[in-house]
Amino acid sequence: MNESEKKVPAVVIKRLPRYYRYLSELLNQGITRISSNALSEKMNVTASQIRQDFNYFGGFGQQGYGYNVEHLYSQIGDILGLNDGDTMVIVGAGNLGTALANHDTFEKRGFRLIGVFDNDPKVIGTTVNGREIMSTDALEDFLEKNRVDIGVITVPHTAVEETAEKLVNSGVKGLLNFSYMELKFDKDVAVENVHLSDPLMTLSYRIKQSKNGE
Amino acid sequence: MNESEKKVPAVVIKRLPRYYRYLSELLNQGITRISSNALSEKMNVTASQIRQDFNYFGGFGQQGYGYNVEHLYSQIGDILGLNDGDTMVIVGAGNLGTALANHDTFEKRGFRLIGVFDNDPKVIGTTVNGREIMSTDALEDFLEKNRVDIGVITVPHTAVEETAEKLVNSGVKGLLNFSYMELKFDKDVAVENVHLSDPLMTLSYRIKQSKNGE
Repeated sequence: MNESEKKVPAVVIKRLPRYYRYLSELLNQGITRISSNALSEKMNVTASQIRQDFNYFGGFGQQGYGYNVEHLYSQIGDILGLNDGDTMVIVGAGNLGTALANHDTFEKRGFRLIGVFDNDPKVIGTTVNGREIMSTDALEDFLEKNRVDIGVITVPHTAVEETAEKLVNSGVKGLLNFSYMELKFDKDVAVENVHLSDPLMTLSYRIKQSKNGE
Repeated sequence: MNESEKKVPAVVIKRLPRYYRYLSELLNQGITRISSNALSEKMNVTASQIRQDFNYFGGFGQQGYGYNVEHLYSQIGDILGLNDGDTMVIVGAGNLGTALANHDTFEKRGFRLIGVFDNDPKVIGTTVNGREIMSTDALEDFLEKNRVDIGVITVPHTAVEETAEKLVNSGVKGLLNFSYMELKFDKDVAVENVHLSDPLMTLSYRIKQSKNGE
């Protein structure tokens, strides 16, 4: 297979977590099969789009018979690498870092939080979600001794670049950045920049549209 | 203009906040003009895509001469409704709600936080970002007396539906929902569901791909 055949569009990759979440819900409800039409309705994506998406990975379905929920869930989990036991650290144990450390969905999705760091002496040594918060000074040493796949960055924006460099220089392959400063590294390092005000702005647009439509 | 001409694709709408953020950075740096190529490079979107996006709103540029940053910033802000002074409340003052109440970008983007609510007696009456946290019991009364455009929902998932109903029944037109439960209302209510584990899953996918590529 050549490189261009393997390339999955970014929009398809972005949809995978949504499929995965929805399938997880179905499993919780004890539902074992779903038609592509039912899946399509829930996901707000056409049934043909779903088939196209799945075809990038060889397709999973049996037409007419629908999809086996557990099989599909496990396949998409594999594609997303959720069964690889990726480890992560959170740097910055303010409100957002603490919220993320307590966010039980991360663990449900297969991620293992193995360290939380902060530079505030009042915070260092306290616990979050049963885990002792370590000093940021100990971060590099920790990264040397432990395999860390993902670094979650929730420090103030003035400390973002330095934190990111430390993580990347110690071999961390993925960064989840919550600062408004977009981080960019070469292609060896995957970065997801989360901007909490973006969905708020989209909402504002839609509210304005619906006002204008009235 | 008929309905189909006015319809802006969702992907274009999703890109508007990114344009807006980037233009805001340029303004902070004192940059007054930018070529569509430079904008394209920073945004990871082709120059022709940018022109196409802007054409949905009548286009803003002068070819060759580039875009006037301040004009573009203000136009996109208008389109996004950021100059409408949308008001918002946060329901749920746990770590995430507190982080959002302290998130100064919201205010920078023109949103006005006018109330924070929680049902924990230990939390009610304390302050967050200079604002006294009110009891959730007082929410409906508050909504009756104040125009609230956006409700940010950061309550535990068992309380999400009830909270959303209260907000919508009192006339709130937009919901920003951080629970893993996707909310859906009829088209009069705009909902943005934020799933913090989605970017983590996308990251996991990209880490796996880069491992396989090695």
